[in-house]
Amino acid sequence: MTAGLHFVRRIRRTPYTSRAEATGLTGYSVYNHMLLPKSFGISVEDAYRHLREHVQIWDVSVQRQVEITGPDAAMLVQWMTPRDLSKAVVGRCYYVPIVDRTGGMLNDPVLIKLAEDRYWLSIADSDLMLYVKGLVIGRGLDVDVFEPDVSPLAVQGPKAEALMADLFGEDIRSLKFYHFTHVAFSGRRLVVTRSGFSTMDGFEIYLDDSSLGEALWDAVWEAGQTYSIAPGGPNLPDRIEGGLLGYGNEMTVENNPLEMGFGKFCKLDGSIDCIGLEALQRINDAGLQRMIRGVVFDGDACPPCSIPWPVMAQDKMVGQITSAAWSPGLDTNVGLSLIDRDFWEPGQPVTVLSADGLQRSGRVSVLPIR
Amino acid sequence: MTAGLHFVRRIRRTPYTSRAEATGLTGYSVYNHMLLPKSFGISVEDAYRHLREHVQIWDVSVQRQVEITGPDAAMLVQWMTPRDLSKAVVGRCYYVPIVDRTGGMLNDPVLIKLAEDRYWLSIADSDLMLYVKGLVIGRGLDVDVFEPDVSPLAVQGPKAEALMADLFGEDIRSLKFYHFTHVAFSGRRLVVTRSGFSTMDGFEIYLDDSSLGEALWDAVWEAGQTYSIAPGGPNLPDRIEGGLLGYGNEMTVENNPLEMGFGKFCKLDGSIDCIGLEALQRINDAGLQRMIRGVVFDGDACPPCSIPWPVMAQDKMVGQITSAAWSPGLDTNVGLSLIDRDFWEPGQPVTVLSADGLQRSGRVSVLPIR
Repeated sequence: MTAGLHFVRRIRRTPYTSRAEATGLTGYSVYNHMLLPKSFGISVEDAYRHLREHVQIWDVSVQRQVEITGPDAAMLVQWMTPRDLSKAVVGRCYYVPIVDRTGGMLNDPVLIKLAEDRYWLSIADSDLMLYVKGLVIGRGLDVDVFEPDVSPLAVQGPKAEALMADLFGEDIRSLKFYHFTHVAFSGRRLVVTRSGFSTMDGFEIYLDDSSLGEALWDAVWEAGQTYSIAPGGPNLPDRIEGGLLGYGNEMTVENNPLEMGFGKFCKLDGSIDCIGLEALQRINDAGLQRMIRGVVFDGDACPPCSIPWPVMAQDKMVGQITSAAWSPGLDTNVGLSLIDRDFWEPGQPVTVLSADGLQRSGRVSVLPIR
Repeated sequence: MTAGLHFVRRIRRTPYTSRAEATGLTGYSVYNHMLLPKSFGISVEDAYRHLREHVQIWDVSVQRQVEITGPDAAMLVQWMTPRDLSKAVVGRCYYVPIVDRTGGMLNDPVLIKLAEDRYWLSIADSDLMLYVKGLVIGRGLDVDVFEPDVSPLAVQGPKAEALMADLFGEDIRSLKFYHFTHVAFSGRRLVVTRSGFSTMDGFEIYLDDSSLGEALWDAVWEAGQTYSIAPGGPNLPDRIEGGLLGYGNEMTVENNPLEMGFGKFCKLDGSIDCIGLEALQRINDAGLQRMIRGVVFDGDACPPCSIPWPVMAQDKMVGQITSAAWSPGLDTNVGLSLIDRDFWEPGQPVTVLSADGLQRSGRVSVLPIR
């Protein structure tokens, strides 16, 4: 399970890759055809503890941007998601499930409203730009769709605010969650959001000039010396505990947003026109048959979950674990699974059949797991 | 450069992964969000020699299928590519560049015409299914678009025909290049094409039942014992020498099919209606400014090329190498590069600035390289 990754241009390096390598990168993932630094020579458990106490710098350039600009941009963006964007304002970020005509998830990006006619979709792991291009060509819309030269760098952890204030000024402290502002860096004006794929406080800096990647990394790194900064990446037990779902892990086109717990982002009363509305209404009317849940299960630290593991209630398979890890905070294993409706109540006893052949006793939990 | 790859469900295993691992898998790539076995404990050079003398079994499940079925299928497929499909027949495969409205490449799949109203697109490394879904929704077409449970397994090398004849009967010997037939396996009727991402003879078996993956691998493996079969994967020097271009490596949305040498697959006389036609006509009328070429260059075996390397003619950058490797057959380094028109004649002397800091003398070559 430790076979090496072959390096080719097709798996794109980022403006920060050289710096990540210089700070001891030991493990990658590949995400949106790009390198995602994941580990830096310390255990996932130690990285988890560090993230929750200090501050980390993450190269999340893999959150590639799809820019949509033009007269039809607002209409297109609303058409693409069941989330009601009629009151969306410039300066805010919106988590927007994207579904096809069957209600199946295609991506779950963060929408950044830059102007009334200009948006970025900060994407999860599928080529959402191709879908947008298809919609635009198919319907003959008047917008430009392209990937701008934008590479998000995340600063995550309880000391992120102090670091960012030192680097960009005290005003950044008042930035609210899922809002954005602009900061000055090296002659540019960069979008900074208060967001990130961790359970901790954090910011994401949307660098719009690749040639400044190393300079930005160095500036954050230097400002972080006071705060015990370390390099890092999305931390598996942290995200599982927090109920942060991963496209391709917890959900694929086989899943609808309602069962993923995104019902609050689905306006199904017919007041908006969006792709998949009828399918989602039908699914909602029929009643959900399963729902995403946490699962807490015992035994030693579980192996990585690369093929879903059955979740059993006595002899019946009632779900499948799609991500799993040992949680240092909860001192037990944690996982994420869709669970059938008759078994989805928190506390439901289950058995997890992990890839190492063990049968592990567990229970269903709400999300975030507790 | 040998950092490990993290294993998660999001990077999908294939029906053959367990067998590939059991036969000594040592290096992966990630392609279309799936594992692509690349190396098996022997050098790229030894794998190259073996491929050209014997036969190899390759897990190419990453060539995911996009199935398009329904009344509008034929119209949609033609609309998606500048290649003239008016005379396309059932039983044949067609290499089809896919371009957007600017003429930029989105993918370069193989189209398999299964029936007049049923097609598979066997895709390169981008989520072409999302583009097709977008077009269908945008234009309101009457087709189903989905990924079937199909996992191609390639048999490549000069002894591939003998192996396939032993396994599926002598008739397979008469199958022509880029044609397909059906073979019986374990109660199923599988599509087999004469094709593959190597310069050698070969076949691809389109298994349509994941549960039979290990059985099919084992059957090919056993039949291959007579022919010195080995596990393998797309071989870098073999494909570079042969001029087999890789989406994401040699071409992206920044490139048009004409400069990639696919002019023969672009019908620009206005007789077909396809996306990007006007852009391609404009590009063609203006005259190509650069063209894909081989580059042969000296020195010791070059490092992997993960960031394009400048190709210089005296002090002018005239191209960028996007894939490079040492060729055991030609006993020199080989690469692929777009070359500016004033310098694209075969024999043009150039200097390659490889990532190891060396300046390597070389020359421009036709493709396949010789």
